Amino acid sequence: MGLWFVFYLKKNIKRRAQNKIFILSISCLNKEIAWLTFVGEHRNRRTENLLEKLFITTAYLSTIISYSFLHLRLLEKTLAAKEKEFARVIKLGRTHLQDAVPMTLGQEFGAFRSQIAKGITRIKAAFPHLEELALGGTAVGSGLNCPEGFADAAIALIARESGVPFMAAGSRFEAIACRDAQVEMMGAVNTVAVSMEKIANDLRLLSSGPRAGLGEISLPSLQPGSSIMPGKVNPVIPEMVVQAAAFARGQALSVSIGGTTGPLQLNMMHPMIAWCSLMAMEVLGNAARVLGERCVSGIEAVREKAEGWIEQSLALVTPLALRIGYDKAAALAHEAHKTGKTVREVVQAAGVLSSEEIDKLLEPWSMIRLEK
Amino acid sequence: MGLWFVFYLKKNIKRRAQNKIFILSISCLNKEIAWLTFVGEHRNRRTENLLEKLFITTAYLSTIISYSFLHLRLLEKTLAAKEKEFARVIKLGRTHLQDAVPMTLGQEFGAFRSQIAKGITRIKAAFPHLEELALGGTAVGSGLNCPEGFADAAIALIARESGVPFMAAGSRFEAIACRDAQVEMMGAVNTVAVSMEKIANDLRLLSSGPRAGLGEISLPSLQPGSSIMPGKVNPVIPEMVVQAAAFARGQALSVSIGGTTGPLQLNMMHPMIAWCSLMAMEVLGNAARVLGERCVSGIEAVREKAEGWIEQSLALVTPLALRIGYDKAAALAHEAHKTGKTVREVVQAAGVLSSEEIDKLLEPWSMIRLEK
Amino acid sequence: MGLWFVFYLKKNIKRRAQNKIFILSISCLNKEIAWLTFVGEHRNRRTENLLEKLFITTAYLSTIISYSFLHLRLLEKTLAAKEKEFARVIKLGRTHLQDAVPMTLGQEFGAFRSQIAKGITRIKAAFPHLEELALGGTAVGSGLNCPEGFADAAIALIARESGVPFMAAGSRFEAIACRDAQVEMMGAVNTVAVSMEKIANDLRLLSSGPRAGLGEISLPSLQPGSSIMPGKVNPVIPEMVVQAAAFARGQALSVSIGGTTGPLQLNMMHPMIAWCSLMAMEVLGNAARVLGERCVSGIEAVREKAEGWIEQSLALVTPLALRIGYDKAAALAHEAHKTGKTVREVVQAAGVLSSEEIDKLLEPWSMIRLEK
Amino acid sequence: MGLWFVFYLKKNIKRRAQNKIFILSISCLNKEIAWLTFVGEHRNRRTENLLEKLFITTAYLSTIISYSFLHLRLLEKTLAAKEKEFARVIKLGRTHLQDAVPMTLGQEFGAFRSQIAKGITRIKAAFPHLEELALGGTAVGSGLNCPEGFADAAIALIARESGVPFMAAGSRFEAIACRDAQVEMMGAVNTVAVSMEKIANDLRLLSSGPRAGLGEISLPSLQPGSSIMPGKVNPVIPEMVVQAAAFARGQALSVSIGGTTGPLQLNMMHPMIAWCSLMAMEVLGNAARVLGERCVSGIEAVREKAEGWIEQSLALVTPLALRIGYDKAAALAHEAHKTGKTVREVVQAAGVLSSEEIDKLLEPWSMIRLEK
Repeated sequence: MGLWFVFYLKKNIKRRAQNKIFILSISCLNKEIAWLTFVGEHRNRRTENLLEKLFITTAYLSTIISYSFLHLRLLEKTLAAKEKEFARVIKLGRTHLQDAVPMTLGQEFGAFRSQIAKGITRIKAAFPHLEELALGGTAVGSGLNCPEGFADAAIALIARESGVPFMAAGSRFEAIACRDAQVEMMGAVNTVAVSMEKIANDLRLLSSGPRAGLGEISLPSLQPGSSIMPGKVNPVIPEMVVQAAAFARGQALSVSIGGTTGPLQLNMMHPMIAWCSLMAMEVLGNAARVLGERCVSGIEAVREKAEGWIEQSLALVTPLALRIGYDKAAALAHEAHKTGKTVREVVQAAGVLSSEEIDKLLEPWSMIRLEK
Repeated sequence: MGLWFVFYLKKNIKRRAQNKIFILSISCLNKEIAWLTFVGEHRNRRTENLLEKLFITTAYLSTIISYSFLHLRLLEKTLAAKEKEFARVIKLGRTHLQDAVPMTLGQEFGAFRSQIAKGITRIKAAFPHLEELALGGTAVGSGLNCPEGFADAAIALIARESGVPFMAAGSRFEAIACRDAQVEMMGAVNTVAVSMEKIANDLRLLSSGPRAGLGEISLPSLQPGSSIMPGKVNPVIPEMVVQAAAFARGQALSVSIGGTTGPLQLNMMHPMIAWCSLMAMEVLGNAARVLGERCVSGIEAVREKAEGWIEQSLALVTPLALRIGYDKAAALAHEAHKTGKTVREVVQAAGVLSSEEIDKLLEPWSMIRLEK
Repeated sequence: MGLWFVFYLKKNIKRRAQNKIFILSISCLNKEIAWLTFVGEHRNRRTENLLEKLFITTAYLSTIISYSFLHLRLLEKTLAAKEKEFARVIKLGRTHLQDAVPMTLGQEFGAFRSQIAKGITRIKAAFPHLEELALGGTAVGSGLNCPEGFADAAIALIARESGVPFMAAGSRFEAIACRDAQVEMMGAVNTVAVSMEKIANDLRLLSSGPRAGLGEISLPSLQPGSSIMPGKVNPVIPEMVVQAAAFARGQALSVSIGGTTGPLQLNMMHPMIAWCSLMAMEVLGNAARVLGERCVSGIEAVREKAEGWIEQSLALVTPLALRIGYDKAAALAHEAHKTGKTVREVVQAAGVLSSEEIDKLLEPWSMIRLEK
Repeated sequence: MGLWFVFYLKKNIKRRAQNKIFILSISCLNKEIAWLTFVGEHRNRRTENLLEKLFITTAYLSTIISYSFLHLRLLEKTLAAKEKEFARVIKLGRTHLQDAVPMTLGQEFGAFRSQIAKGITRIKAAFPHLEELALGGTAVGSGLNCPEGFADAAIALIARESGVPFMAAGSRFEAIACRDAQVEMMGAVNTVAVSMEKIANDLRLLSSGPRAGLGEISLPSLQPGSSIMPGKVNPVIPEMVVQAAAFARGQALSVSIGGTTGPLQLNMMHPMIAWCSLMAMEVLGNAARVLGERCVSGIEAVREKAEGWIEQSLALVTPLALRIGYDKAAALAHEAHKTGKTVREVVQAAGVLSSEEIDKLLEPWSMIRLEK
């Protein structure tokens, strides 16, 4: 990392080369980890302390400009597009995995979109503390032997080059003694992982089938498929996302442990903290990208199946109660349940309402307060 | 705990009063936690050190004879009964949540039973290290000021009264300096929690519906139910089990952290470790009991639904391939997929096989190598 | 909770009765957990759905106005007072637990203060998402059967009474389908726990001794102490804090798991999530209060010990290098290391500098750029 | 992996090529992960199901014969050697980080050795469930389309070649539906990580200094060292071990999450589970090796420092009480505490005992019941 950083300062790259910085810092981090951990320090103390602070700086920099962030935006956009596309696909909502009341598939994808949009807010909320740099604090934070003006100049340079509003740490002693800012960031990453795991689990469930599952959506197939079992699409991308989320959540724990095991003036767990943080963000970022590009973007609604579940469900009895009374409606519902018939069938058989009235009453769109 | 232990030694209770010991120790532990943590020690050092070891001993004792263990056995038995009861209920197995091949519901419950049976083995495998007591080690393990013979006598007494084969720790220094035995036990408890979470999740899924879900089993209803939405049974007990498992897994992490934060000769995290361990085991034990008694025992198979999924699925095309050739079978499968018809329907329409042959070939029981 | 909430709305309490609300909601939550989890629902669906949303609302409300928050402020103040009090106590800083360079004890406590101050910021940053209420969404978020205007009125009332700026959720579907806001909050709580664990660990270390440890500070004694071993103060409060932090971190994991196990339109893990969140905040809040009031406030610097470590350390050789050259200074350092003498002793013996010069050069205050 | 496995079966390697198998399987696993996760399945179902089972088998095989296990043995041996070497080094034991009573450094290392020895037992206890293979279960466990005799032959071959007593799973349905055996193993790995973290933390503490810390042991220096600050050895290897342990514990959480996210008949989280398990074991195994070879083996006792702490401590007053009475001993202890003198000094000044008696009474070896 040391070498890279010198190179970086000298080159004085003109544009906000975020990806480049990231890639460079990652490759340097790997070397640095081996080097710092196994070889240790054989330079004079002043260089060493400077390098240690630079290392932490790089880790913070990389975390902030990590491209995982951009990928969440792409996923959000893709989900928003589907929210719009599915605005007119009606389906049965489920609570406790039990049949509840109608809603649109667009509303379901809108909830996913909202989770990811908030996830981006969460990640960004963890930036300010990462933007406090301990550069110039040297050994313990007091700045002993640090050339006058170095810290301000270095921080200003890094801020200018990276486009990230870095500033000097409020307490350099704190900035060196703990890694709380990284623990905080991983709390946000963990929350994003939880959101993505929920979304992926729901996609697996909604696309289950093709015959003996919910089958309300179909995922794009990534492979020729079974020649003898057509229509079967294993949800390999949602499954990958669940694995990526589980991976990221484990790294969040590692970072959190690292936050408590640095005694007194220096938390020296940063090689592991940097590795786990950056890996978690990279894996999760990639998962978000692949989920958006190769799965969500190609999801299709299976309208007949989705509408079929509503038609079969007993939820349709709810609007009926307002017209024929609660007791009568309940009686019809029980008959439907007992006989396995649909609400429509038992209502028609009961002969209490005209066909037109039945059609109007059992119109699920009115139950979600939207016009057909 | 101190008071209770003296009482216990004096009374010299004759029978293996496991539950009583457990309840007593729990109630004492609570007091002890407040006392040890907030008040600290105002007695002479010798008594103090003895009490500390007794406290650890009690925590180990309680962990071992915790009745959670017995509850797992009950759950295992209930699952075994269902495995037998459902041995002749055929259903469609699912991999990746996609339709796969037939199996019996009994086989599915047999897998659950096997998970719990192994869980009991896992818990028991963590006993031996908990059975090593540090009693008599006094302050750091050397036994300074401990009366000759006390340790052996005390350990023998506890073993005799509790029926647990306690023994003197191989290294008293180790037994006082770390809580590894509790961390190990919580690893087993965590695995049992994972098993129970998987089972509960599957029960929620299998009972989803009543109309717009898999609906292969019905859970016993614990309440009058919705008068207007008959057949809807919220899986409240599986949901409680998932929550209990999540709770237990969190406590396992707390215990694990406690295992690393006791420096040098004494790990003094035992109040928290004892609380988290015992609470996790109690909550998980209760969850196992309630799951067995009030949920699993009343589960009923919904045969027509389960068999319906097979009939609808394209899996039936597999045995067909052996009779009419792979290509022809695949073509029929594609037609079924395209038209939404069942395999039976397209085969009948194709007119290549007699009715009898069709019935014989599409018999799912033969696909699981069992007679109907 | 249901009963309490009705009571609360009716009473229309005039003042911001934060503690009262908290206490009430906690006591109600406990009942609710038992009730929701084990008994389930036997009322009509509309009430039920309303109650479920109210339950989540209460959990969010309680989390936000939890008094743990106030306790962190008290701890911050106490640490700030000590930062000031110890501004003129010089000591040796340690990196990698190895002797480094001088700093003040005030700077050390300033770093602790900064950690807690940021912790408060972290907790507050998690408020906005908790302030989005799903009230009025009824079953799945669509608001079916919810009286016109109820949601806005109810949310306005709760906001006015509690003084918390609650608002309607941006996506009610999202607010019901996931518990991400709680997972986010527990990420912040986990970070605060990590900070407190670090502080408590450092306090244990700095007060280790009284003879065979660092002994730079003395903690207030909470008990008469050993009559035969005077000066020995077990750090029971820092130890309690470490346990509280481990407990809170475990609960954060439980909540995080709860965030992923609620399929489709409803995450129904809120009883466990509420319990674990509120317990973690209560335990950690209490720990912060006790740490501030009964430990930090009574900490005293052991000046002679702290200064003694500097005098003994080889760090004093650093300023010497600027006066007599690096090689000569290094040679003197090696002699000191070899003979076990102090830097002052070997410099005096070398006779290269006058007594006055030695005193001036070996003045540690100049090494931290502060006047004595 | 598929290719490798075929190759492996064909070659029919004669010797127990453990490392080779491990390396091969790892390299195959990596490819497999990318392949399984991103590409999916484009072969016929029968091959696919076989490959999936082979993949799990390989993961189990690799876990069991992972060389991390051998490294723990080496560490145990190195610790045992130090236990013997330091049997005659007396030091002060510390509880709550406060001065307690004398013990030997050998006893301290004996406790470490005991932790590692038990760790090996813990890992081995997780083998039996990993040795149950699902081979031959095909899709869901029923063995549909699996050639008669394949499973037994394949399992026997793998067992013979690997030297691991593999057997057919008791319930193939369970073996395919869950990854409990891996979760169990990671519970053991987590416990070993906790043990190693405790040992590494203690080594950091015991070697703190060189002047302003405990300094009872000195770690081997891995680098030239600071030319101007001789004697300072940053505990880079213990710090690496703490990081490795934190890493492994995070992976244990990931695996544990993976254990709950595989619904119904197949837990398909094995790519992530295999990666996290094997990485954790490899990193922890390497850490154990490096800790033993490059740190523990070169640790030296700093006798004068260790003995100095005892001489300074007030613990020496304990044996005095038996000779001159508790009250008199306590009075002398208080005087020592007040004046900062040693017990020996105040006893000599008191003139109540002869020099010979003092030497005999204040002999710490008698306090640990060992002869000098």
